Amino acid sequence: MKKKKKVNATILVIGNEILSGRTQDRNVAFISNWLNLNCGITVSEVRIIPDVEKKIIENIRTLSKQFDYVFTTGGIGPTHDDITAQSIAKAFKIKYGYHKEAYKILENYYGKKKFNDGRKKMAKMPMTANLIYNPSSAAPGFITKNVLSFPGVPSILNSMIENSKRYLVKGLKIHSKTINLFTVESNISKQLEKIQKKHKKFVDIGSYPFFRLGKVGVSIVSRSTSKKKIATVNKDLMRTIKSKGIKILNI
Amino acid sequence: MKKKKKVNATILVIGNEILSGRTQDRNVAFISNWLNLNCGITVSEVRIIPDVEKKIIENIRTLSKQFDYVFTTGGIGPTHDDITAQSIAKAFKIKYGYHKEAYKILENYYGKKKFNDGRKKMAKMPMTANLIYNPSSAAPGFITKNVLSFPGVPSILNSMIENSKRYLVKGLKIHSKTINLFTVESNISKQLEKIQKKHKKFVDIGSYPFFRLGKVGVSIVSRSTSKKKIATVNKDLMRTIKSKGIKILNI
Repeated sequence: MKKKKKVNATILVIGNEILSGRTQDRNVAFISNWLNLNCGITVSEVRIIPDVEKKIIENIRTLSKQFDYVFTTGGIGPTHDDITAQSIAKAFKIKYGYHKEAYKILENYYGKKKFNDGRKKMAKMPMTANLIYNPSSAAPGFITKNVLSFPGVPSILNSMIENSKRYLVKGLKIHSKTINLFTVESNISKQLEKIQKKHKKFVDIGSYPFFRLGKVGVSIVSRSTSKKKIATVNKDLMRTIKSKGIKILNI
Repeated sequence: MKKKKKVNATILVIGNEILSGRTQDRNVAFISNWLNLNCGITVSEVRIIPDVEKKIIENIRTLSKQFDYVFTTGGIGPTHDDITAQSIAKAFKIKYGYHKEAYKILENYYGKKKFNDGRKKMAKMPMTANLIYNPSSAAPGFITKNVLSFPGVPSILNSMIENSKRYLVKGLKIHSKTINLFTVESNISKQLEKIQKKHKKFVDIGSYPFFRLGKVGVSIVSRSTSKKKIATVNKDLMRTIKSKGIKILNI
């Protein structure tokens, strides 16, 4: 059996509307959860940049070297501010033009009469790219080297992501366990640090305060590629929680 | 009268919980909107990175040179995974330790008896930093050179942000105008491109599809530091919209 390794990815969000705060991004959390759950791929960094060719080219070049995969969102629609495809082509010095298969898909979808210039633009991309099919609005995403490009509209992206799976090498899944407590972080920070030190080779322990029903709480999240190691950490955590008489909200 | 210039900023989101998709970030959109509206500062890039000292140091050094301001969110709480303050101190080679004023604030807030080690940790930061006061939970944020550090919990960050204003040089505000249309992007992409080309020196035009009440629509957003230029673009847009017989949803 081939042993799986850690595989990582970065998400490059391309869009003035996210940077300006006009639009709330929803794709980062979705892609990250989907990648971990379905492919064992960990998102290690995210960048949000404007619709500026120079910025896109720079980031594509840097990130495609640093990470196993780069997921881009946004900028592949029919209007003048959609410049992701041409920028990726420039970044990799690949010819940009009509992709035969994408052209056919779109022509079939719209019919010859309604296949106008704006729609045709969505068939333009790095010409050697492979397609990521789009079951909701036809215009395909594409993969160029290790860069996978998706549209920015969450509902469309969500419907397409399964079709990118065939291009991805699977890695080790990160498991996680959350314990929610009715306490304040400072009440358990010393003990948490000790437990984290003891298990630091295999488990990452995070502590996140929350507010619920007017009460302050803390979520303790243990993350590891090994379920067994998480169970061991959990035992240590439960011992501390009991000794302090802290109320558990749910596990 | 001193003429205002363009001032930019970057947001560095520090936190495994955002990267993993466990927690949906809400601070980027809030900070970006607040900065533009209240200070005329434009957010030009965002990065989300894990709670890893090396990554934080690298990014602080790079970004503080590239942008007028760096806003960090997350990692300034009482637990072992809160390492933003010490990492910024290291990035700038400033001594990390108890900040006298922060220590006093926290001691007063909790009372000497309840001021435990976890809480004391929140008074540790780059020792030459200036404080950003926190009206909701006392633990202050801080500014080190051009880097402003906030907690990750949105309700706390939101309550603090006004207190950072005194440290910021104001810039030119970006105004924007949105026209929502019941049409598809490809129907107006050609005309939009022409209008954008004509006004590209002063106005950025963005086109964003939306779905509402089962219908497809497009938001056309014009952004500029000049309200007058936006009005000129708007006239051109309205001419196109009328000539195409497109229904306007609202302006």
